[in-house]
Amino acid sequence: MKSKLIECIPNFSEARRSVVLEKIKNSIIQVKSTKLLDIHSDVDHNRSVFTFIGSPSSVEDSAFNAIKTAAELIDLDTHQGAHPRIGATDVVPFVPLSNASIEDCKNISISLAKKVGDLLNIPVYLYEESAKLPGRKNLEDIRRGQYEGLKATINNDPARIPDYGPSVLGKAGATVIGARHPLIAYNVFLSTGDIDIAKKIARSIRNSSGGLRFVKAMGVLVNGKAQVSMNLTNYEKTPIYRVVELIRSEAARYGTTISSSELVGMIPEKALVDSAKWYLQLNNLGSEQILEHHIYADYE
Amino acid sequence: MKSKLIECIPNFSEARRSVVLEKIKNSIIQVKSTKLLDIHSDVDHNRSVFTFIGSPSSVEDSAFNAIKTAAELIDLDTHQGAHPRIGATDVVPFVPLSNASIEDCKNISISLAKKVGDLLNIPVYLYEESAKLPGRKNLEDIRRGQYEGLKATINNDPARIPDYGPSVLGKAGATVIGARHPLIAYNVFLSTGDIDIAKKIARSIRNSSGGLRFVKAMGVLVNGKAQVSMNLTNYEKTPIYRVVELIRSEAARYGTTISSSELVGMIPEKALVDSAKWYLQLNNLGSEQILEHHIYADYE
Repeated sequence: MKSKLIECIPNFSEARRSVVLEKIKNSIIQVKSTKLLDIHSDVDHNRSVFTFIGSPSSVEDSAFNAIKTAAELIDLDTHQGAHPRIGATDVVPFVPLSNASIEDCKNISISLAKKVGDLLNIPVYLYEESAKLPGRKNLEDIRRGQYEGLKATINNDPARIPDYGPSVLGKAGATVIGARHPLIAYNVFLSTGDIDIAKKIARSIRNSSGGLRFVKAMGVLVNGKAQVSMNLTNYEKTPIYRVVELIRSEAARYGTTISSSELVGMIPEKALVDSAKWYLQLNNLGSEQILEHHIYADYE
Repeated sequence: MKSKLIECIPNFSEARRSVVLEKIKNSIIQVKSTKLLDIHSDVDHNRSVFTFIGSPSSVEDSAFNAIKTAAELIDLDTHQGAHPRIGATDVVPFVPLSNASIEDCKNISISLAKKVGDLLNIPVYLYEESAKLPGRKNLEDIRRGQYEGLKATINNDPARIPDYGPSVLGKAGATVIGARHPLIAYNVFLSTGDIDIAKKIARSIRNSSGGLRFVKAMGVLVNGKAQVSMNLTNYEKTPIYRVVELIRSEAARYGTTISSSELVGMIPEKALVDSAKWYLQLNNLGSEQILEHHIYADYE
C-alpha cells in the first residue's frame, strides 16, 4: 500500500500532424512504468490531451521527455488553432491518485519546472496548487494574450517573469506546470423534464452562487430530461456523496427526485470507496481491508 | 481489466510446529505471482489458515504445493486439536475477486482436485459451488466423524467414495476443495444499548428466519452497544447496501438508528464500488472508468 500513483494530463498545441503525436507518444511510453491511458485530439483546436499514470519519478520523466519532443517539433510562430495557448506543451497538470497527496504532485511539478527551465530553456509558470504567486493560480490569467502577447511582454513586464527558465520566448513558447486535484465530471438526472428546476438546483449547490466550495454546476436538458451538470474540483473537501445528497434535498423541495447519475470520463477509486464508507457508515474502514489493494501495492 | 484475481484460503491441521508452517509458507510463495496476505494460527485448534491471492494458475499451483508439503509433514494419526478435521490440508476454498467468476473458481477446484487425487493419492471431496452431490455442499456433512470416522468407512460406505483419488485414507487424510463466494464479516452498531432490538433485527434480516437469502445474523452487545453481527455469504446476490438499508428500516421501527458499521477482515473492492454505484444511482459506471483499474490490469 505504499506505491504512490500519479496522473499526468499534458496538453500539446498539435492535433493535425499525426507523426508529431506519434513521437510525443513514444517519448512518454519509453519510460517503462508509465502507463498511457488516453490520447484526445481536437483538430479545430489543434490541441491534444494525453493522459498517463505511473509512479512519481516515471510520470515526471515521461512529462519531461514529452515537453522536449514537443519543443523540437512544434513551432508556435506558425501554430494556429481555436484553443488559447502559450506553448508547444501548453499545460502539464499532475494529479494525486492512490496513496499520493497533493504535496507529492507539488514536488514533482517544481522538480520538472526546474529541469524544463534549466535544460530546455523554456520559461515555466507554476499554477494551481503549485503557484508561487496568487495571480498565477488560474491558468487563464497566465495564458492571457496567448503566445503572441507573452512574446511581446516577457522580457519587459516584471509581472510576466517566469518561475523557472529564461525571460525569453523561443518558438516552443512557455509551459504551465502544476499540481491539482482530480477533476470529476459528474451529472445528475432528475425525474422531470423541467430545465428550470435543474437550473435552480445548480444555482443552490455551486460555489459561485453560495453553494459548496468545489462545485461548478449548470442546469441543462439532455434527451428531454433535466440534468444538473457538474465539475467537482476537489472530491476530498467537497465529496461526491455530499453533493448528491444536497441535490436530493433540493430536488425534493421542487417535488422531484434523482432518477440516475453519470460519470463522464474517469474517477479515482477513492472517490467511490469514500462514498461507500459514508453511506454504509463504515467509519474505520482501512485501505488494507480492500483485498485488491494488496495487488496495487506492487504495481511499480 | 482482463487479469482474473483469485483468493485461496486453505486450512491446515497444524499450528504448533512453526517449522512445518514455514515449509507450507515457502511452498506457497515459491510461485512467483502468488501474493501471501495472511497466516492465522490457532494453537488450541492446532489449525492454521493461509490467505493468498493471484492469477488462476498461480493460486492453483500454490495450493497444490501446499497440499503436497502438508501431506509430507502432518500425520493425522497423531494430530490432536479442538477443531474438527479430516486431513492434513483440511479444506481449500477458492474465491473469485476482480474480473473472476465463481465458474473460474469451480474450474480451478476441479483441476486441483484431480491432480491431488492422481498425483498425491489423497481422497478429495468437492464442496460448496463445486459439489457434485447435494450432500456434499456443506463442509460439516463431508467432515462428519472426522479423520478417524472417515478412515473406518471410506472403503466400505458408498456414500463416502471421494470425487477424486483413492478410497483409501493415508495419514494425510482427505481434503475438501471447492469454489465459494467471498465471505464478508460485517457488523452494524445501533444507537441503543438494548440487545433485544439487535436480536429482533437479526431475526428479521437473516435467511434462517425468513430474511435475506445470503445473510447469517445475530444480535449481540459490544461495549454496551447493541450490534447486529453478520456473515454475508454472497455479496453479489445479497448486496451489502440492501442489508444495511433493511436494518435501517427495521431500526426505525424500534425507534433507533444505525450509529456506525464495521468490517471484520477483508472485502472485495467490488462490494464497495457496488455500494457507491447504488447510493449515487450511477447506473452505467464502467470498471474502466476507475483510474486505478488500469494498473490492476497489469498485475500478472
